[in-house]
This record gives sequence, structure tokens and C-alpha cells, in this order.
Amino acid sequence: MRVLGIDPGLRNLGWGLIDVAGSRLTHVANGICHSAPGPDSGDLAARLLSLHAQLTAVLQQYAPDQAAVENTFVNKDAVATLKLGQARGIALLVPAQFGITVGEYAPNAVKKTVVGAGHADKGQVEHMVRIHLPGVVIAGADAADALAIAICHAHHLQSSNRLQAALKRAAG
Amino acid sequence: MRVLGIDPGLRNLGWGLIDVAGSRLTHVANGICHSAPGPDSGDLAARLLSLHAQLTAVLQQYAPDQAAVENTFVNKDAVATLKLGQARGIALLVPAQFGITVGEYAPNAVKKTVVGAGHADKGQVEHMVRIHLPGVVIAGADAADALAIAICHAHHLQSSNRLQAALKRAAG
Repeated sequence: MRVLGIDPGLRNLGWGLIDVAGSRLTHVANGICHSAPGPDSGDLAARLLSLHAQLTAVLQQYAPDQAAVENTFVNKDAVATLKLGQARGIALLVPAQFGITVGEYAPNAVKKTVVGAGHADKGQVEHMVRIHLPGVVIAGADAADALAIAICHAHHLQSSNRLQAALKRAAG
Repeated sequence: MRVLGIDPGLRNLGWGLIDVAGSRLTHVANGICHSAPGPDSGDLAARLLSLHAQLTAVLQQYAPDQAAVENTFVNKDAVATLKLGQARGIALLVPAQFGITVGEYAPNAVKKTVVGAGHADKGQVEHMVRIHLPGVVIAGADAADALAIAICHAHHLQSSNRLQAALKRAAG
């Protein structure tokens, strides 16, 4: 089972892929899709088109079975929230275009799963991602967050599988 | 010149198409892409996928030359703003995937162009859309807004053309 985690952002969209076999997690790849503002990368529609193309290439290359996206919002600044929403729309759309279900997790749920505390800082998250995935080379903070989201989804899959197995034993 | 106006929304995404020949505007078509929440239409990613497919079908059928989207945001409720942003991401992406530039207009600019006042209500906007496009049958409030955005874009194109013609005359 290959899981894609996505940390959406308009300028930097982090992605991270892990393989899940039982309780064993293996790093596959991670990176950041960039779409800088300004005359080179054009207007907002062109930036979203670029993010869509970059993320589509990741799914084509690595063929994940499941995807997960952080269910976050910025509540201090409506303009920033709208920008994030637009990038998040692309992050949710692309896996759906490949027929892959997309899990959503609150930032605190991701931190709690990966670090053990809901209010961990970015440094702690990246540190624990390195412990979960020994030897990983991380492309940047957004890619670390994306790997954390993938790990969170993997743990939820494992819990769900254990629960189903227990229910089966209880029923049998 | 065929112009597509889009009024983005997650549940109801309005669209309206007009043809522009000089100062003459003609209605082509309008409608609303729906993606209701709930068990039938599935999770957020499935809803965005559905909006993407419906809007793609509109562009395939009517082949507009230009597109315009309202540059709006909700600043009272971060959750609503994020939802709108996600739908807006799709509204900007689809025309860009067809190689069409996407204009953005603030709601007050749209109202000022169509009604003559920046603080017109929805009823006034719809009334003036009917006057600009005689005989139009409007699919709903979101489609009326989308037609208003298309009319706004057409007026900006005309002003820009008149300006360029005047500059050319002045230079010649």
C-alpha cells in the first residue's frame, strides 16, 4: 500500500510518499511543487495550472494507492485563507482524477500521531519523520509536513485494519 | 469573441457565456454546476472532481475565447472562505487547462459595470443582466452573477480596445 501525503500551499505545495506493509513504513520519495508569483510564472490561474501539472506528474510517476491532505485553514487573514483554499482545491482534485480516495486530517491529529502531542512545532515534526523513516532526505519543511500526513494516514489505516481483524475474531 | 463568466461556489458554481462583437453583446448560454454534500455526491475531493468535470464539459461544448472569475472572498468565516477558495481553484484551473486567460474582477467592479453602482443587490444585478441580454432565460442567481462577470469582462475588453485604437491614432 503506497500513501501520498500532501501539504497544500499556493507557493510551495509539499508532497511525500511512503510504502506501508503491516506496521512497517518505508520512504519512497518527497518533494515540493513550486509556483512563485510574478511575471515569470504568471497570474493565479497559470500558477494553479502549474501546480496541477506538477502534482499530476508525481501521481503518474509513483502511482499511490491512497492520498491524505491536511484539513487546515488560516483564520486570521481571509486573503491567505482563500489562496490556501485554491491550492487545496488542486491538492484534492488531482488524486480524485486518478480515482484515489483522499483522507483529510486536522493538523493537530497529524502532530498527535507523528509526535505524540497535538501542539508540536515544525522542528519536532521533522525530527519524528526522520525517526519513522530512517535515512530519509527531506526536500524542505513542506515536504516534511507532507510525509507526516502520509504517516498519519498509514497509522489510521493500520488501526482500522486491527479493529476489523478484532471484530472478525469476535464474530468468529 | 466569446466570453465565459464564472461565479465560483462549492455547492453551486454559476457560469454564463456571451458573444461580444464591437459593443454588441449576445447571450449564448448559462447554467449552474452543482455538487451537493452528503452520501450521494461523496467527500470534498469527489465534489471538486464533479465540478471540474461539469465545467470542463461547458468549455468543450462552447469553446470560449476568454474567461473571467469574480475575485471575491468571505471574510467573516474562515471555513466558508476555504470552501470558496477550493471551488475557485477549480474555476481558475479549468479555463487555464484550455489555454484561455482568466480575468479577475472584484464584486464591486462587476456591479459598477453592470448596474452603475458598486453596492447593488442581487435583484438589481439580475435585472440589468436581462437589459444587457434581451430575452435571456437565467438558470438561477449564480448564473445571473456569472453573466454579470462576463458582461464586466466584455466592457473592459471594449475600453481596452478603444484605448489602443486612440493611442494608435495619436501615434499615427
